[in-house]
Amino acid sequence: MARTLWTDDAGLPVTWDQTRLPFEQVVIALHDAEACARAIATMQVRGAPLIGAVGAWGLALALREAADDVALQSAFDRLAATRPTAVNLRWALARVRAAVLPLPVAERAARAHAEALRLCDEDAACNAAIGRHGQALLEPLRRDGRPLQLLTHCNAGRLATIDHGTALAPIYALHEAGVALHVWVDETRPRNQGASLTAWELGERGVPHTVIADNAGGQLMREGRVDAVIVGCDRVAINGDVANKIGTYLKALAARDNGIPFLVACPVSTIDPQAVDGSAIPIETRDPAELTRISGRDDQGRVVSVQLTPDGSPGLNPAFDVTPARLVSWLITEHGPCRPDASALRALPGLADPTRGPA
Amino acid sequence: MARTLWTDDAGLPVTWDQTRLPFEQVVIALHDAEACARAIATMQVRGAPLIGAVGAWGLALALREAADDVALQSAFDRLAATRPTAVNLRWALARVRAAVLPLPVAERAARAHAEALRLCDEDAACNAAIGRHGQALLEPLRRDGRPLQLLTHCNAGRLATIDHGTALAPIYALHEAGVALHVWVDETRPRNQGASLTAWELGERGVPHTVIADNAGGQLMREGRVDAVIVGCDRVAINGDVANKIGTYLKALAARDNGIPFLVACPVSTIDPQAVDGSAIPIETRDPAELTRISGRDDQGRVVSVQLTPDGSPGLNPAFDVTPARLVSWLITEHGPCRPDASALRALPGLADPTRGPA
Repeated sequence: MARTLWTDDAGLPVTWDQTRLPFEQVVIALHDAEACARAIATMQVRGAPLIGAVGAWGLALALREAADDVALQSAFDRLAATRPTAVNLRWALARVRAAVLPLPVAERAARAHAEALRLCDEDAACNAAIGRHGQALLEPLRRDGRPLQLLTHCNAGRLATIDHGTALAPIYALHEAGVALHVWVDETRPRNQGASLTAWELGERGVPHTVIADNAGGQLMREGRVDAVIVGCDRVAINGDVANKIGTYLKALAARDNGIPFLVACPVSTIDPQAVDGSAIPIETRDPAELTRISGRDDQGRVVSVQLTPDGSPGLNPAFDVTPARLVSWLITEHGPCRPDASALRALPGLADPTRGPA
Repeated sequence: MARTLWTDDAGLPVTWDQTRLPFEQVVIALHDAEACARAIATMQVRGAPLIGAVGAWGLALALREAADDVALQSAFDRLAATRPTAVNLRWALARVRAAVLPLPVAERAARAHAEALRLCDEDAACNAAIGRHGQALLEPLRRDGRPLQLLTHCNAGRLATIDHGTALAPIYALHEAGVALHVWVDETRPRNQGASLTAWELGERGVPHTVIADNAGGQLMREGRVDAVIVGCDRVAINGDVANKIGTYLKALAARDNGIPFLVACPVSTIDPQAVDGSAIPIETRDPAELTRISGRDDQGRVVSVQLTPDGSPGLNPAFDVTPARLVSWLITEHGPCRPDASALRALPGLADPTRGPA
């Protein structure tokens, strides 16, 4: 497994259909803006950094069709509407727009293409840096000669990014450095990104791991079987409140109750300086069918969808929750660890740069 | 739906196979001790009070085959080993044993049969009392003219008991009294007792409810959409620590963090005076296949089991966790609300009665 998003012989982006993993490895072409928008909305691609990259590609591809200001804004709006919570999407779209807006219409598509490529390279480099900083923070937490015991929620791995992952970047760095470790993988209902994606990519790299129900992490912490929790994030408010996959808040509460560090891997692009606190972050509610049905592999090797709930029982499916800053030990950015408060966040390089700010 | 366990024309116990609900309503005969043991071990019956009742029936049925002291103890041990965490099982077995031990061998089977019937009647009456006490505690929590918003985890309903349920008994009492309410039903991975059993039995009775992922409850509490959490319990230590379905502890933490009452429906039979605190309660670890596979109904209406995790990714499946007494607002017993501390628990009627104590 090289990068999660790469370009084919035509120089156009292709990626894995993550709704088919882990049982089927299907490559999908993202050859026009609509394919990008659909891939984000249906979660063929997911993870804040990867959504941002696919959004940037979508805008670049839209400009191949029409690149005047009206077409630019229309494509921007279509792509921005696909997922509301992750701020990287708007950040990446704004970055491409800012790069092309001063240019003549005829030059915009090529410039946007170059910007999408650059954004992908920068994401990989950013995550590698998070990996190094996280490694330095986590390695001293290993105790009693046993493997370092880490717990993660959802998938903030290679599959959520162009490369390395955010929360999983330090785990890969530790593993490659030969540090003995073991990862508790929350299955992450309702879409099971942990059980299907994190378990799969850790397995591909030979990282020891065990899948657990989302319900189990608290008890494992009480039993002293977790040294740290590390998760990604979809948007961080300027006060340090963290929006991430639904269920993150419960793990942060349990980490606090048991004196365990709770770390959030946080590229600067996920910080929203315009969100005063978590209440300003929109929480996406998704189709209840994601909860009431599930896909898996049957005994004949076919991937099938089954219904889990009785007919007539409705479901509600909020996709994210907000973890208050007071429960976060460290944000790990590409510039190093950062305390979750406004003064520390505002001091981060790149945050105030208008070409990097959200739209 | 009348009682969850009833007797057929032969006077022998029958019940629902709860592994087949909600999609198939299959009645199973519990006509010998082995059928009772197997039903408990495979979770065809589950829920601390129901396990206790089926255990009592199992011992009574064993005595029809052989009723000498050696056979009695052998059947006791076989049944007690089926599930380790719920204390009701040992309590119910001990109660039947204590009733028959002083009798001549020839009279034991009939006496045990009568005791099993009596235990079932008492369970129904006990839960009805919990329902009344819980109703009185919950009704004042309704606010702003909106329906009372309750959250429950796992199934502590009619299906977990002979009748009424424990945690759901107050909900049925409120609903029957015409109090507007709505129940958030945690799906309760890995076995989905909430999504499959609680949703089904609330639907049968017309109680408004919505199924949510176990991950969602914290965010709903943060948004002010939960007035109280009410759960059952499998065993309560004498200091008030509560062992219940895995994930309960996380909801208790979230309730505390949001100032929401956390109530535990607790028949006196679930209190273990010999467990000094939660660390003395054995936590059952079950087959990881309960986590890595799931059953549901496919598009052809067939109930099928599918695999959720990649080949080669192991799972761990602790079935219970311990919620510290400090997070519990009230235990609701058949004698009324009780604070979770040793002095209050020791004062409960019936606790010190040696014929009711655990073996």
